[in-house]
Amino acid sequence: MRLSDLAARFGGTVLRGPDFELGGFRPLSSAGAADAAFLADASKVGLLADCRAGCVILPPAVADAAPASASSVWLIDQPYLAFARVSQLLEAQARGAMAPTTTIHPTAVVDASAVLGMQVWIGPHAVIGAGVRIGDRTHIGAGCTIGEQSCVGDDGLLHARVSIGPRVVVGARVVMQSGAVVGADGFGFAPDAQRHWVKIPQVGGVVLGDDVEVGANSCIDAGTLAPTRIGHGVKIDNLVQIAHNVQVGDHTAIAANVGIAGSTKIGSHCMLAGGAGINGHIEIVDNTVIGPMSSVHGSIKESGHYVGFFPIMTRKKFERAAVLVRTLPERLKQKLLPSSSE
Amino acid sequence: MRLSDLAARFGGTVLRGPDFELGGFRPLSSAGAADAAFLADASKVGLLADCRAGCVILPPAVADAAPASASSVWLIDQPYLAFARVSQLLEAQARGAMAPTTTIHPTAVVDASAVLGMQVWIGPHAVIGAGVRIGDRTHIGAGCTIGEQSCVGDDGLLHARVSIGPRVVVGARVVMQSGAVVGADGFGFAPDAQRHWVKIPQVGGVVLGDDVEVGANSCIDAGTLAPTRIGHGVKIDNLVQIAHNVQVGDHTAIAANVGIAGSTKIGSHCMLAGGAGINGHIEIVDNTVIGPMSSVHGSIKESGHYVGFFPIMTRKKFERAAVLVRTLPERLKQKLLPSSSE
Amino acid sequence: MRLSDLAARFGGTVLRGPDFELGGFRPLSSAGAADAAFLADASKVGLLADCRAGCVILPPAVADAAPASASSVWLIDQPYLAFARVSQLLEAQARGAMAPTTTIHPTAVVDASAVLGMQVWIGPHAVIGAGVRIGDRTHIGAGCTIGEQSCVGDDGLLHARVSIGPRVVVGARVVMQSGAVVGADGFGFAPDAQRHWVKIPQVGGVVLGDDVEVGANSCIDAGTLAPTRIGHGVKIDNLVQIAHNVQVGDHTAIAANVGIAGSTKIGSHCMLAGGAGINGHIEIVDNTVIGPMSSVHGSIKESGHYVGFFPIMTRKKFERAAVLVRTLPERLKQKLLPSSSE
Repeated sequence: MRLSDLAARFGGTVLRGPDFELGGFRPLSSAGAADAAFLADASKVGLLADCRAGCVILPPAVADAAPASASSVWLIDQPYLAFARVSQLLEAQARGAMAPTTTIHPTAVVDASAVLGMQVWIGPHAVIGAGVRIGDRTHIGAGCTIGEQSCVGDDGLLHARVSIGPRVVVGARVVMQSGAVVGADGFGFAPDAQRHWVKIPQVGGVVLGDDVEVGANSCIDAGTLAPTRIGHGVKIDNLVQIAHNVQVGDHTAIAANVGIAGSTKIGSHCMLAGGAGINGHIEIVDNTVIGPMSSVHGSIKESGHYVGFFPIMTRKKFERAAVLVRTLPERLKQKLLPSSSE
Repeated sequence: MRLSDLAARFGGTVLRGPDFELGGFRPLSSAGAADAAFLADASKVGLLADCRAGCVILPPAVADAAPASASSVWLIDQPYLAFARVSQLLEAQARGAMAPTTTIHPTAVVDASAVLGMQVWIGPHAVIGAGVRIGDRTHIGAGCTIGEQSCVGDDGLLHARVSIGPRVVVGARVVMQSGAVVGADGFGFAPDAQRHWVKIPQVGGVVLGDDVEVGANSCIDAGTLAPTRIGHGVKIDNLVQIAHNVQVGDHTAIAANVGIAGSTKIGSHCMLAGGAGINGHIEIVDNTVIGPMSSVHGSIKESGHYVGFFPIMTRKKFERAAVLVRTLPERLKQKLLPSSSE
Repeated sequence: MRLSDLAARFGGTVLRGPDFELGGFRPLSSAGAADAAFLADASKVGLLADCRAGCVILPPAVADAAPASASSVWLIDQPYLAFARVSQLLEAQARGAMAPTTTIHPTAVVDASAVLGMQVWIGPHAVIGAGVRIGDRTHIGAGCTIGEQSCVGDDGLLHARVSIGPRVVVGARVVMQSGAVVGADGFGFAPDAQRHWVKIPQVGGVVLGDDVEVGANSCIDAGTLAPTRIGHGVKIDNLVQIAHNVQVGDHTAIAANVGIAGSTKIGSHCMLAGGAGINGHIEIVDNTVIGPMSSVHGSIKESGHYVGFFPIMTRKKFERAAVLVRTLPERLKQKLLPSSSE
């Protein structure tokens, strides 16, 4: 891929070296004359000092800092985005020509009633249930299981060992990392008179939009009666829990270890940082950012950036601070804190 | 299933339409003339206004609010519980007649020394180790692995891709969701003189009581010498960690993302909300409720409802509050907080 | 194994009964005349009162408290470490003689280009990709998948259902518990002009040192361009998330439910307690201890023990304390807290 062709496709200006053949990226610190590298953030321009990359991709503001050793320089507003797009092209190229016909590994178990699209690939030991439909060019990795009546759209990529339950509808271009579980039973039990838990069947399934990514070992549970719904373009990191009946709006990003309890509705274009916990039966409006390890107890009606975690301290100091926090209500009562009515 | 038969079995009063054939539930908002729907909470009686369900299940207190369009009305004290019980019947019916004999998928690998009960179903690519025993009518899903000398009781349901280690004893009517791992090595290491970690074999196994449910991608580790023990009727949500040597009492419910550290003893009828973390080597008494994202540091000797998480705020406000919390001990020292002895 | 031989090998003094044949351990409370038991902590000497073990392993300080019923007593400085080492010997013995030649289960799918060492064992339904290399005496459990061009060192033990992605380099003597996923795509996306997320291929792989343990359902993501790196002797518990481009120093221990965000560098000999969350792009120095459920927001430059979690309280008290914490900045502004300049 010639740099000039890439710039024609994705924009920006080629400062020099339009004929550079871009074959792969390396970090600024280790790239050599045959590699491309990029500077995502103009404020880190100092990183260019020792850069030996053949091709550098820079924000226009730091054009002057392009290393003399770079035979090729591409200026573009969002170098990270350019890197993403070019990397995708390279990866598609590397994957090479797809098999011209649908290919089922001889060890896979595909129900006779399943309907597979064109150029589908079903890996070793995959198990495809009754009535399942798989879209064109979709790749089902080794050891995946897909339950009855579920469907996966076109151009999907399920890595090894993904499990999809029954009644799950997956959109186009979805990526699922290993160990993801979509459509397991939601956690629904009613107590009987002896306070034993009676299980409530969860038959609502899950609906995933187009362009969704589900991380490794993440879980999206089936709804009770109606589906759990994940919007288009939602990106979910590893070890995330999305409970039954949750709705997540389009283009929301959810980092690792987040848990969203049942029946909660998350807006579009939200960002939930790692380890955040969202209560059940609440709503969070569009464009909301939740900080790491933060517990969202009630609905958020105004978009913004919300955070809440106890600051870390040395253990000795923490023990004193924790006691003080714990005794704040008593201090107020004992007038060791002035009350606001005073 | 005629409504009058269901009421005879589970209690309550049929206000009208005893001949309604209950074939399935839908949410109040989308149920039609052929569907049943239920109102769990009398305080949400307003939801009935637009309900078009053929059959509604209501608490007696709101009998007057039954929609005129409902041809059939069932009054019962706990509609949610009635829904659970009827749904279970429907599901059992839908599953249909079980295979009359034990069925092993030709791709499954079952050790010659394993003992299978009657009407057992072993799915594709399951691997059953030496000396394993499987109870009557138990279903082992695709890709499950069961280690040597373990046993699973009658009427169990292991969904696809569950792993049970060696020396695990599972009671009757247990449900495990995909990706659950029961009986992996506990996390036990002793430091040597060079501060390198020496692994301690974990050979105690796990004992699960009857009617336990284990969620997707949850982990229950093997004990060191004696088993990790989970009581009867314990319900465990997704992505839960239960460390080695833990004991959980009967009918306790554990929500998603909870972690329980080693050798801790949780009482019966406890409820641990999502994301809670329980320290090792402590005890929590029966009937204790722990709030979401709460860290339980020491033993809880009195039952009650305990909570502790930093409240969320806008980021700007949080930054000031965090500084104040962090400096509370210094403020006390500098007499910016009056001490309680004053 | 005679006790006198063990003491000759691992140190300490045999107080009596050098001919005791040590065949297995049980807890102090349930060990019988044929079992060994150990007291890890001299301060818990009271536990010896009811001990009926045939052989007891004690710290020298409590030699006098050895139960009269114990026919054999071994005094050693770290009984827990002695227990670990002897248990490993017992386990190695129990595993018995390894197969003299490499053994591939007939249901496993091994690419023709994979290179297997001597005495390798490949379990049922495992899938070994193109160009993979497996070291001598390494055990690949049932249902494991290993991606293209990855390699696993000598004497490794992968339990059932582990997934290793492409381009992963695993050292010698590594243990991985069921459900672990090493080398899935890191969570990298760049927003385009419409605020849709564009995926950035993650091709850096993972490098794991020697003697690493990875817990059940834990995830270590592939780096973007350069590998995510886990040092020698690092021990990782269950359900841990290690994001792309992270570096973890040698002999660090990471407890369950911990999350480490992208590009962070953790030092050597650190300990991260359960549920801790570490921000991205920060550094934590060697010999740092992080408490449970603690959120590490910025770099830690001085080693020590750091903690931060909101103390739990009864719900009623918590509600008051949370309001007070939330209003601390306003209280300061309204002079309900004296400012430090006063």
